[in-house]
Amino acid sequence: MAKAKKQPRPKAETPKGFADYFAAEVSERKAMLDTIAGVYELYGFEALESPAVETVEALGKFLPDVDRPNAGVFAWQEDTQTDKPGDWLALRYDLTAPLARVYAQFRAELPSPYRRYAMGPVWRNEKPGPGRFRQFYQCDADTVGAASVAADAEICSMLADTLEAVGIERGDYVVRVNNRKILNGVMEVAGLLDPAEPAKFLDVRGIVLRAIDKLDRLGTDGVCALLGEGRKDDSGDVTKGAELTSDQIAIVMGFLDAKVADGGATVRRLSDLVGSSTIGRQGVGELEYIAELMDAQGYGADRVVIDPSVVRGLGYYTGPVFEADLTFEILDDNGRPRQFGSVAGGGRYDDLVKRFTGQEVPATGVSIGVDRLLAALRAKGRASGIQRGPVVVTVMDRERMADYQAMAAELRNAGIRAEVYLGNPKNFGNQLKYADKRNSPVAVIEGGDEKARSVVQIKDLILGAKIAKDATLAEWQSQPAQVEVARADLVAEVRRILARTP
Amino acid sequence: MAKAKKQPRPKAETPKGFADYFAAEVSERKAMLDTIAGVYELYGFEALESPAVETVEALGKFLPDVDRPNAGVFAWQEDTQTDKPGDWLALRYDLTAPLARVYAQFRAELPSPYRRYAMGPVWRNEKPGPGRFRQFYQCDADTVGAASVAADAEICSMLADTLEAVGIERGDYVVRVNNRKILNGVMEVAGLLDPAEPAKFLDVRGIVLRAIDKLDRLGTDGVCALLGEGRKDDSGDVTKGAELTSDQIAIVMGFLDAKVADGGATVRRLSDLVGSSTIGRQGVGELEYIAELMDAQGYGADRVVIDPSVVRGLGYYTGPVFEADLTFEILDDNGRPRQFGSVAGGGRYDDLVKRFTGQEVPATGVSIGVDRLLAALRAKGRASGIQRGPVVVTVMDRERMADYQAMAAELRNAGIRAEVYLGNPKNFGNQLKYADKRNSPVAVIEGGDEKARSVVQIKDLILGAKIAKDATLAEWQSQPAQVEVARADLVAEVRRILARTP
Repeated sequence: MAKAKKQPRPKAETPKGFADYFAAEVSERKAMLDTIAGVYELYGFEALESPAVETVEALGKFLPDVDRPNAGVFAWQEDTQTDKPGDWLALRYDLTAPLARVYAQFRAELPSPYRRYAMGPVWRNEKPGPGRFRQFYQCDADTVGAASVAADAEICSMLADTLEAVGIERGDYVVRVNNRKILNGVMEVAGLLDPAEPAKFLDVRGIVLRAIDKLDRLGTDGVCALLGEGRKDDSGDVTKGAELTSDQIAIVMGFLDAKVADGGATVRRLSDLVGSSTIGRQGVGELEYIAELMDAQGYGADRVVIDPSVVRGLGYYTGPVFEADLTFEILDDNGRPRQFGSVAGGGRYDDLVKRFTGQEVPATGVSIGVDRLLAALRAKGRASGIQRGPVVVTVMDRERMADYQAMAAELRNAGIRAEVYLGNPKNFGNQLKYADKRNSPVAVIEGGDEKARSVVQIKDLILGAKIAKDATLAEWQSQPAQVEVARADLVAEVRRILARTP
Repeated sequence: MAKAKKQPRPKAETPKGFADYFAAEVSERKAMLDTIAGVYELYGFEALESPAVETVEALGKFLPDVDRPNAGVFAWQEDTQTDKPGDWLALRYDLTAPLARVYAQFRAELPSPYRRYAMGPVWRNEKPGPGRFRQFYQCDADTVGAASVAADAEICSMLADTLEAVGIERGDYVVRVNNRKILNGVMEVAGLLDPAEPAKFLDVRGIVLRAIDKLDRLGTDGVCALLGEGRKDDSGDVTKGAELTSDQIAIVMGFLDAKVADGGATVRRLSDLVGSSTIGRQGVGELEYIAELMDAQGYGADRVVIDPSVVRGLGYYTGPVFEADLTFEILDDNGRPRQFGSVAGGGRYDDLVKRFTGQEVPATGVSIGVDRLLAALRAKGRASGIQRGPVVVTVMDRERMADYQAMAAELRNAGIRAEVYLGNPKNFGNQLKYADKRNSPVAVIEGGDEKARSVVQIKDLILGAKIAKDATLAEWQSQPAQVEVARADLVAEVRRILARTP
């Protein structure tokens, strides 16, 4: 300890790309996670909490968004304190890779199908940027071991229910559904996929997939450029194109454009586009079945729509893919209105467990971006980001701390958040400033005079702030911001004030 | 992707020392964390969630339990992709070090005192062992910026309230309180601390502290040995002793033994023991004040007691220290009854923030070991570790999936957990086995015959299991485990069965 003095002081800084969350930021997110978990539970999913740390071997190379620079994981090698090299460990980058590991490991004991949900932080070793953090929450539900696309349909309806449960009104969101097999069929028609040799053209298909995924952001022209020669962005950076012929581009763009108002008509157009491709026809059939199940349960086009432009960037999807978009507008950083966009996505991935076991295990799931969803609720005024503080019992006489503690205890026993001011009580103004900073609704004051008369002063801090802001307002005059009540009426009076200022 | 086939399959294994938690293990812990957070909030504490990752510089060298082998953190160096060496980052090993960093960083904006609670996993890079994990939950509440030991007293009463709120009955726990300053006074009397030169004897005092902390486990003889020549344990390993003289040992042991039934009498004995030591007298005064506040609020000796043998192993405590012990007996791994022991501890640490700012900031707090507390509740039968599954709607006719989904949706709309069986429906027995594995209370069956007659079969799986186990029991015979009801009565009948089997 003595040595520490010679060292320079450490910097008190959140590591770059990470964030600290305070008070309402924590409790609002928690409330949202609880609500989402409630819907997931209602649908029969059960909780799984796997550790933050996995072996690099188990995580595999399924990192999403592989075209981003510096994409990666936080990893380190175990120090075994022997000659033996240690395992490489890493922080999980999503909740799907750990699920595949858990399912492969415990499949003999787990129910089949295994419906699990998981929520918690994931970590990405990426270059931090505005609004892009290296630790963020995901909230996933997956069904492992169910081959039927009824499992996918169910996840789409659950996603709609979840969004409404957290406070996104019907009409303010849409769940868009597509099927990767249809895209494969279209690629077959365009000569970009040979069913006999699926490994061929893989690189080109990756570029096509990522290009389509950018339709929202780049528009038709941008995507066409990426499908062809490539694209130069505003900063002059060039993104390599897929080098498709104009006929091929027309086929792919025809697919993206296949959506019409009526779901049935969209499916018919898609059916034409995939021609005789076996995989394509299979995809159309699955999409029809999902649409049928959705309709039967009353999830109409106001909630779930078929939309061929949804492809999801992730390489591992093999069948249905879906995405939940918020359709209302917010102002972007430049003050321009734009659609809020995607808050959740998912799809079917039948190969993830196979990595471990060699056997294909059908699986489908969804991941909700909790922080984006919270941002949306705040933009709509449905989450405040502000938490009301506790009632503050001030300290007029530091010898009578036990009296003040007894008041706080009485309030707490009545279920009211309350505390005694525990800073230096000398400056009374500081005590009220503290209550103000805590956003406290009420301060309780009992000096020697009050004590002698068996009364307390109760200050309505919310009303007080309003009066201070708008002192001329006559209506406030009838409601004094500070009242004197009998000590015995402390709890009743505080409760009365709290009821007045919800 | 094509290349992946040549690689050996990854092992599906939880990394060593980590654990996966399923269903009730997750939901019971969550319920406990929610309850604890509720009490912390009621006392005016507000939530803080700092990232899992901190710079090694900010975490510092305050790792607890420094006498354990291989104690350490999971750390790695950032890859800057330039010549510049990256920062060293690490997973937090507790929630106190990040609090000190956050407070130092945001002290201008935070209220003072700052009362915050935090809950979440922490990580220790230790050799894993039975019941010792490298990731575990902590649940802390701290008050930063309050010099008054009223803040410590409040945390002791909050700790008692919290234990009762999670289901530990009064009489099954005790909060034991002591003060490090008294120990320092005793050390002064024993000639092991020179107030003019506090850095002297530091090593010896560290050994003394850790020896005292082992009183529960080693008994008086063991501690005496550690204070003197050292101690050889059953395995033959030798722990170095503090090399105190027999007079010095007598003084320290007199301190540990100072507890008598009456708190006031204990304080008087302690007062004698510290003699004229300034720091010792200050400690006795603080302890008296805490006892007075506790008494005034009705936290008597059945809940909070003064106990000089509580010293807490951590080096950074500077004043009051406290610990919550569960006093009931459980059977240990060898079948012998033993006291459950400590589930929470804390104390005052006035130097942690100073590392960053150079200014001493008074702080006190408590940390609850959530996983140990859960184990205690399970030992008392207050937590089951078992979660009831959803109602399972079975699939008799895979062409009528929409019908089955509609039933599940009806049940869910009535607030009942329900799902359609989504595995291969061919083997009906597998569907019931699935429901059994999920611990489902009810299965719903609607074949073609039932459909034609507008009825459904409802199977009470809990009753069914009881009948199967004890078929002779007459009372079950009046309650058939499977009933046929009108399709329209599905929800009402399921609700009736659920009400019967809580």
